[in-house]
Amino acid sequence: MSRIAVLGAGSWGTTLAIHLAANRHQVALWGRDRNEIGRIDATRENAKFLPGIPLPEQVKVRAELEPAIEGAEIVVYAVPSQAIREISSRASAAGASGIPVCVAKGLEHGTLARMSEVLAATLQDRHSVVLTGPSHAEEVSRGIPTSVVSASDDAARAETVQAAFNSARFRVYTNDDVIGCEIGGALKNVIAIAAGVCDGIGFGDNTKGALLTRGLAEIARLGVSLGARRETFFGLAGMGDLIATAMSRHSRNRAVGERLGRGETLDHVLASMTMVAEGVHTARAARDMGRRQGVELPITDQVCAVLFEGRAPREALQSLMTRDPKRED
Amino acid sequence: MSRIAVLGAGSWGTTLAIHLAANRHQVALWGRDRNEIGRIDATRENAKFLPGIPLPEQVKVRAELEPAIEGAEIVVYAVPSQAIREISSRASAAGASGIPVCVAKGLEHGTLARMSEVLAATLQDRHSVVLTGPSHAEEVSRGIPTSVVSASDDAARAETVQAAFNSARFRVYTNDDVIGCEIGGALKNVIAIAAGVCDGIGFGDNTKGALLTRGLAEIARLGVSLGARRETFFGLAGMGDLIATAMSRHSRNRAVGERLGRGETLDHVLASMTMVAEGVHTARAARDMGRRQGVELPITDQVCAVLFEGRAPREALQSLMTRDPKRED
Repeated sequence: MSRIAVLGAGSWGTTLAIHLAANRHQVALWGRDRNEIGRIDATRENAKFLPGIPLPEQVKVRAELEPAIEGAEIVVYAVPSQAIREISSRASAAGASGIPVCVAKGLEHGTLARMSEVLAATLQDRHSVVLTGPSHAEEVSRGIPTSVVSASDDAARAETVQAAFNSARFRVYTNDDVIGCEIGGALKNVIAIAAGVCDGIGFGDNTKGALLTRGLAEIARLGVSLGARRETFFGLAGMGDLIATAMSRHSRNRAVGERLGRGETLDHVLASMTMVAEGVHTARAARDMGRRQGVELPITDQVCAVLFEGRAPREALQSLMTRDPKRED
Repeated sequence: MSRIAVLGAGSWGTTLAIHLAANRHQVALWGRDRNEIGRIDATRENAKFLPGIPLPEQVKVRAELEPAIEGAEIVVYAVPSQAIREISSRASAAGASGIPVCVAKGLEHGTLARMSEVLAATLQDRHSVVLTGPSHAEEVSRGIPTSVVSASDDAARAETVQAAFNSARFRVYTNDDVIGCEIGGALKNVIAIAAGVCDGIGFGDNTKGALLTRGLAEIARLGVSLGARRETFFGLAGMGDLIATAMSRHSRNRAVGERLGRGETLDHVLASMTMVAEGVHTARAARDMGRRQGVELPITDQVCAVLFEGRAPREALQSLMTRDPKRED
């Protein structure tokens, strides 16, 4: 039994807090929106992001960072990727000292930093843990069997986090390839947007099978250029998460693509969403990173063209699917 | 423009015959059921397997093998895997001499032979071509963008077949790893049954993401032990086909698993199907092959236990998803 702080009271943060309480930890759940946090504490339910699931008694809801992180052996960062720098800076100033676990999947705008790089800068801690893999919050909260990865270059920390989170229906495997796990988690949201476009314009499973195959190859190319191991992309943090995201009705990123494919504008789609679609932010950062690394990312490029340059989704997809055929490699 | 014979008038054979005619080839479509073939020729439609799609004039429907294969530069074997030996033997006796292209995905019962090994024996031709990848017939016949692989250890033949089949919406890539392409195509049907069980008992995308990841690793292990290249399994013939099959409502193998997961018996499921679910035959052959090669195939073993030993589907799935966690590799 440990003291664990979960920073971020969205659907994933709330789900993990409830899961950790079921694993008999003492959990503090912190959110930045005081009104929201007050409502969650009063009703013992996160009606906005996880309706119908009661918060167990062991989850203490906190509006202030200090009491949330005080004595916490593990601090889980469960805010959107573009907010990780700010929230981890505040946590650092508030004295956070436990093992940092990042569950946000993305790349930072502008700096192109991976989340562990952001935490290294803000927390002065170069050995954070990445918890990633195919894990829709809605399903974890219903007890659907789920398998994830606890990745760190500090093996003892990866195992501590594994032990804290593991349960019969939430299996945690360790891995030491932090870069691979982070790139897999971030980039799959971009490919999921492309898969959604595929759905929106009425293409089929044949198209998606081919698109995801090329998408994973593209993710792996970028990751390997950054020092990741190729095998990581064929594990839970790569292929597993990509499939779960790109095929699921739960995925916000796939849904963004589907609506674009049906002809809605990006502004219209984003205005109607209560949750962040990480892939929209990550697409641009991934494209810039590909250029920096000299790695071709044709699907990412087309997703950016659709998102930011008004390219017609059908044209973008067709240009990907009708290249001159040659050898498969 | 070539003369091409398509042996087998099921949904895939008929779809390929129509596709090849659209590519301006002279196509002969042969089927073993004379009554069925007579109906197809009279109505110019395969009402049983591909309703609503008219056969173009360039497709000649044949009830006899000799005129079908006479002068054919390419002979496509589009019968179920367990019938490949018989049909190719008959084609050989009837004088077939064109490039043999196999589109059946499976392993032969008893002999555990791959389809190219069967053709090598019956046709005395060790350099057949495998055409495989994510390609549901229903989608190809509607012009949905599809990408497949033409694999042979004879590069010139792989390219001839590529040129014959390639079109704007049916992209053909060459590959020289015949073993990998065959094992990927055969085994994905077994994993698709497991994915269907997952659907049938109400598990979610998290579970399927993890299951398919392990499934592909299992397929690759077996393939590599037989001499295949690992990379092949992360291409169209491996991951691409696995995703399209395991996630699709078109897949008969996934559907078998789903119905088993809902509690139907195998006899009941099979009695109600007009088309063959290849995975049911392949599961047992794959299990035997794994034992012969000394390779662990935990998902295949559980699929066999459900199919042939009356194991409860939920128990089988749960035993796969709740193993003791350790390192991901």
